[in-house]
Amino acid sequence: MMNFSAELKEKQDYINRVLDKYLPETEGRQKTVLEAMRYSVTIGGKRLRPMMMAEVYRTFAPNADLYLAEPFMAAMEMLHTYSLVHDDLPEMDNDMYRRGQLTTHAKYGADMAILAGDALLNYSFETACKAFSDGSNPAQDARVAKALQVFGKKAGIFGMIGGQVVDVEKTGQALTEEEISFIYELKTCALLEASMMIGAILGGATKAELDLVERMAKNIGMAFQIQDDILDLTGDEAKLGKPVGSDEKNEKTTYVTLHGIEASSMEVKRLSAEAVELAKKINGTEFLCELITYLTVREN
Amino acid sequence: MMNFSAELKEKQDYINRVLDKYLPETEGRQKTVLEAMRYSVTIGGKRLRPMMMAEVYRTFAPNADLYLAEPFMAAMEMLHTYSLVHDDLPEMDNDMYRRGQLTTHAKYGADMAILAGDALLNYSFETACKAFSDGSNPAQDARVAKALQVFGKKAGIFGMIGGQVVDVEKTGQALTEEEISFIYELKTCALLEASMMIGAILGGATKAELDLVERMAKNIGMAFQIQDDILDLTGDEAKLGKPVGSDEKNEKTTYVTLHGIEASSMEVKRLSAEAVELAKKINGTEFLCELITYLTVREN
Repeated sequence: MMNFSAELKEKQDYINRVLDKYLPETEGRQKTVLEAMRYSVTIGGKRLRPMMMAEVYRTFAPNADLYLAEPFMAAMEMLHTYSLVHDDLPEMDNDMYRRGQLTTHAKYGADMAILAGDALLNYSFETACKAFSDGSNPAQDARVAKALQVFGKKAGIFGMIGGQVVDVEKTGQALTEEEISFIYELKTCALLEASMMIGAILGGATKAELDLVERMAKNIGMAFQIQDDILDLTGDEAKLGKPVGSDEKNEKTTYVTLHGIEASSMEVKRLSAEAVELAKKINGTEFLCELITYLTVREN
Repeated sequence: MMNFSAELKEKQDYINRVLDKYLPETEGRQKTVLEAMRYSVTIGGKRLRPMMMAEVYRTFAPNADLYLAEPFMAAMEMLHTYSLVHDDLPEMDNDMYRRGQLTTHAKYGADMAILAGDALLNYSFETACKAFSDGSNPAQDARVAKALQVFGKKAGIFGMIGGQVVDVEKTGQALTEEEISFIYELKTCALLEASMMIGAILGGATKAELDLVERMAKNIGMAFQIQDDILDLTGDEAKLGKPVGSDEKNEKTTYVTLHGIEASSMEVKRLSAEAVELAKKINGTEFLCELITYLTVREN
């Protein structure tokens, strides 16, 4: 039996192959932005969202292959990447490095980064739509339509973008506990919820199971974001591939600035343990449970 | 019987009501960007794309009401609006006025304009997805899925965004006839093609009819763009609601700079007459034919 990190690596490699298959070729007059899209997606990333989607899909459809989920797996990583490309822009966080590499605007210019982000967002929907049959499988298509609706909602103004808006607007201001929760739930949890809910929907989960998945994903998202805040203060720049202390530089109130490192670490563990409990309730795969625990001890 | 301009006005009013219904309310912590979205969509616009969509839908489904097409009509105008919001950004055309009003970044700042554009793009897909039934109408849902695929493709990197990329990259350089065609086909024609093709798909057109609709829309798009270039040189600022001479200011090669005003006007008429012929082949509504002709004599 493989150990966890070998399995993690194998799953990341598989997702990278899926991404390579679904990303557009870099030929044509619009070559620059096609290259910028591919660059943005392939410079790194833990592939956590598609990985979570695949594990939840496997939980509900243990005997199906991942073929039906693949377009959504690729779409989710494209969507996540566009959000990073736009977040890094000079008008936003103005970050020059991510994952140890030049950010998209630093490499291709702000105009091409705006367009590459737009293109990735648009292409994520195009890619998700590839899960539709030619009309010959209406039962499957109904699931795909439902998954697409979750994808759109959690990514948009009442999901990730909504969180980003408030995050940007409130930068430099002291935040309340409630405002922090709102931002974390939308900016970070929403896409993790979407990933796992889409895995559940495509795998045939019931409404009650879908609710459990959403709660589990929210816990994972909160734990993930607080761990991110902790790493921004205590992490190792070489392992993170980006400068630490950026929250302080950008005058951002985080969960950690409100509660301190020790209480934040305990909250990460509590949220994570609860998520593992929920994962067991849906008979989640062993790897899913290990992955949830891993996220709380990660160093990047 | 109403005259053309009264009918045009009535149809615009109807589309504005559809937009009002589908745009999100401006309540919540992310209020600023919800307002920016609504502002961007409602400051004006001829509503040409949803109008064309509705006319082609009516052509193929004369006895159906427009209920099924409405989500796509709203989605198309949101999509078109996001493209204007991002085009106007300082890193792109840096325009402060559009339709006689402050552009979104001039009013809300570049950060909120980037996010409002992202939000409109995302919301356009969310809105189009509202055309899906709850699974009870698989035949209709198959059309919706097909329409959604056309929507995504024509908006993306092999459609509108692809054209915008080349337009931005080539600004300040002399363009060949071929490069101009590429930019016009993608940047302008693609969304008009999508609009009319979606109307045809939802209305139940055959593959052969869909091809005719695509050709007709391409002609209309080319005529529309060349007329835009002519108006940028000869138009009345008060009627246009924006400064003339912006192509010259931005050193853009256009069809008009290559061929002169007289030959360009003749080309607009030729393209438009051909489009009317194609409209008659599909037994297009009378209003559709009038609208095509109107676009070649418009002053804004």
